[in-house]
Amino acid sequence: MIISPDRFLADLEDLGRIGWVDGEGMDRPAFSPSYGIARKFVEDRMKDAGLAVTVDGVGNIFGTLDGSDPSLPAIYAGSHLDAVPGGGKYDGPLGVMAALEAARTIREKSLPLRHPLVVAGFTGEEGGEMGGTFGSRAFAGLLEEPMPAEKLARVGLTPEGVRSAKAGPGRIACYFELHIEQGPYLERRNISVGIPTGIVGISRYAVRLEGEANHAGTTPMKERRDAMREAAELLSEWFAWTDTRDDFVCNVGVFSLHPGAVAIVPGRADFLLEIRSLKDSVMDEIAAKFRSFLEKRKNVSIFMEPVVRKGAVELDPLLQTAVETACEEAKVSSVRMPSGASHDANPMARITRAGMIFVPSAGGISHSKEEYTAPEDLARGADILARAVLEADRRL
Amino acid sequence: MIISPDRFLADLEDLGRIGWVDGEGMDRPAFSPSYGIARKFVEDRMKDAGLAVTVDGVGNIFGTLDGSDPSLPAIYAGSHLDAVPGGGKYDGPLGVMAALEAARTIREKSLPLRHPLVVAGFTGEEGGEMGGTFGSRAFAGLLEEPMPAEKLARVGLTPEGVRSAKAGPGRIACYFELHIEQGPYLERRNISVGIPTGIVGISRYAVRLEGEANHAGTTPMKERRDAMREAAELLSEWFAWTDTRDDFVCNVGVFSLHPGAVAIVPGRADFLLEIRSLKDSVMDEIAAKFRSFLEKRKNVSIFMEPVVRKGAVELDPLLQTAVETACEEAKVSSVRMPSGASHDANPMARITRAGMIFVPSAGGISHSKEEYTAPEDLARGADILARAVLEADRRL
Repeated sequence: MIISPDRFLADLEDLGRIGWVDGEGMDRPAFSPSYGIARKFVEDRMKDAGLAVTVDGVGNIFGTLDGSDPSLPAIYAGSHLDAVPGGGKYDGPLGVMAALEAARTIREKSLPLRHPLVVAGFTGEEGGEMGGTFGSRAFAGLLEEPMPAEKLARVGLTPEGVRSAKAGPGRIACYFELHIEQGPYLERRNISVGIPTGIVGISRYAVRLEGEANHAGTTPMKERRDAMREAAELLSEWFAWTDTRDDFVCNVGVFSLHPGAVAIVPGRADFLLEIRSLKDSVMDEIAAKFRSFLEKRKNVSIFMEPVVRKGAVELDPLLQTAVETACEEAKVSSVRMPSGASHDANPMARITRAGMIFVPSAGGISHSKEEYTAPEDLARGADILARAVLEADRRL
Repeated sequence: MIISPDRFLADLEDLGRIGWVDGEGMDRPAFSPSYGIARKFVEDRMKDAGLAVTVDGVGNIFGTLDGSDPSLPAIYAGSHLDAVPGGGKYDGPLGVMAALEAARTIREKSLPLRHPLVVAGFTGEEGGEMGGTFGSRAFAGLLEEPMPAEKLARVGLTPEGVRSAKAGPGRIACYFELHIEQGPYLERRNISVGIPTGIVGISRYAVRLEGEANHAGTTPMKERRDAMREAAELLSEWFAWTDTRDDFVCNVGVFSLHPGAVAIVPGRADFLLEIRSLKDSVMDEIAAKFRSFLEKRKNVSIFMEPVVRKGAVELDPLLQTAVETACEEAKVSSVRMPSGASHDANPMARITRAGMIFVPSAGGISHSKEEYTAPEDLARGADILARAVLEADRRL
């Protein structure tokens, strides 16, 4: 490895203790006291490493290592420092601390670097009142006007501050983000590194089947318009059909019956259908296909309304190649794959080339205190990030 | 008709105004002030009709018309005077006021009656803290010791009073109950009178499918153990199978997913399966059949636990024949059918011959302010009850 794995892992674990509650997991939401302590920790380590530190108007932290050519835009690398309530310690911080380790390695070993390297610690990626990827959306200038001044004030921010966080044009060469996979793909295939080709888009639909609520004792089975039966038949047919395709995933994770009583034939079934794909056109095609299944339910009234629509994001092919080359150099197994979850790389991809690196999540578990990635996988990911930064520095 | 339909309907409507709230439906739970007013109304009408009135230790009201042979046990006819919150005005009171009308008719027209006729208005049929069919269970001596003294005290009752409500042995010849159907069976077939052959038993099971909760974006479809998909396949197969039988009904009216988030593959599905049949052996057979379907789900852990078990009740063949004869006499269409709901006839059947008469419920609706039965159906039912009482008086 070109990085110092022990130093990197020790810092990552130290950061992971800030906000950690035994038995509960991480308590470090954006703008909280523990979040402030975590950012101070990172700021101190950045200064120790000789980086020039700035904090912007939303609380994103940046540490800059100069490159040999001051005229070039910067390579950014990082992730976020906030955590979901009860989550783990690597979701976000891994990417920040690995970028810091890359900068330290390059500086200490005087490795050739033409572009400036900026270590980025974004804030508020995990959502909350301001929505997910808040810090990186502010940086990418993607927040909508008018700013919600009252909401911002509650976390100590101002519309002016938020606007000032927007990156100036032409300052960014690319963005790298190392992140835990948050799924079982790599672990189940025993592959060390995932190279996301894109971040899936998400469509969500509210679906309703409306039949007729009746006394479950006095209404003969064949005279019912049973929303549970209709929904079961619909979803059974639907999931069987999904087996024929592998260019999307979908989920029904929220489902309810009305009136919801043991002795009443349910008159209504409501559920949310989520569709994710790397291609917006596929999401739309799948939604239309679902609607065609839904329309076969003749015994109930049907409703299907879109409630969420986030477009898919393509990640940069040159950066994917840089990561792949880094893996070959380091003799580390890798596979190209989609990213099923959203990341700061999503808003960043709207303003620059963006690339990601995944390392395995044990059991595919994330957003849980049980989140875990083995130290060797963490260090390997950080090493590949450092190599990929250098590779991109040569290619860009 | 042998009864006076106008008088009967006027009294029934007057009683239906006690506790009625426009737009809300009936507010007349057992032991409430409005309930007391309703009982007083019935008591006054019983006295007007020349009946000897008693109220027992739980608040059941009885009005007795002597028969020509004082040595014979009494024919009881009635139902309950309490209502579900927001319910209608005929569920219960119809059977009480029709029995009163039968007694009035027999007395006024000096129709031959050998047995005493007791008009019964039971209390607390609709459940609440003491459970359903409270008054008739007390009368039938089916309440379990020790009595819940504290609960009883809250509604002004004592254990001694409740015990004293138990009917003495040998006093009862049979029990008739006219009731709205509470289902769509009669209306859809355009038949005036239903003759229940029994009251279905009820079995309820808590069913659980336990798979694995996963991130719905990062977990490939084929690597999931999706409790929603498994439940949909199970219930779809199950309901298809239920089409092959007509000696039971079943329902899944309560269903939930855990953790119940749009972006998480559900790790658990919980639902309640209710089975009703006129035969206890059929309920058990159907439950075993469901379990065999459940056991085919190999991708999840399965659980199925009984939570409720109420045995089926047979109604008396002689009384069914009496009702049928009455319908023939009156040239009224009738059909034998199961009762899918429970009634005061259920506890009464444990201590005497019990028979029921159903009249159509518009749209099958009950336990709702929308409950409705047409006046001609109400009066027809009361007329059949009077005739059936006389027929049973001859046959017993």
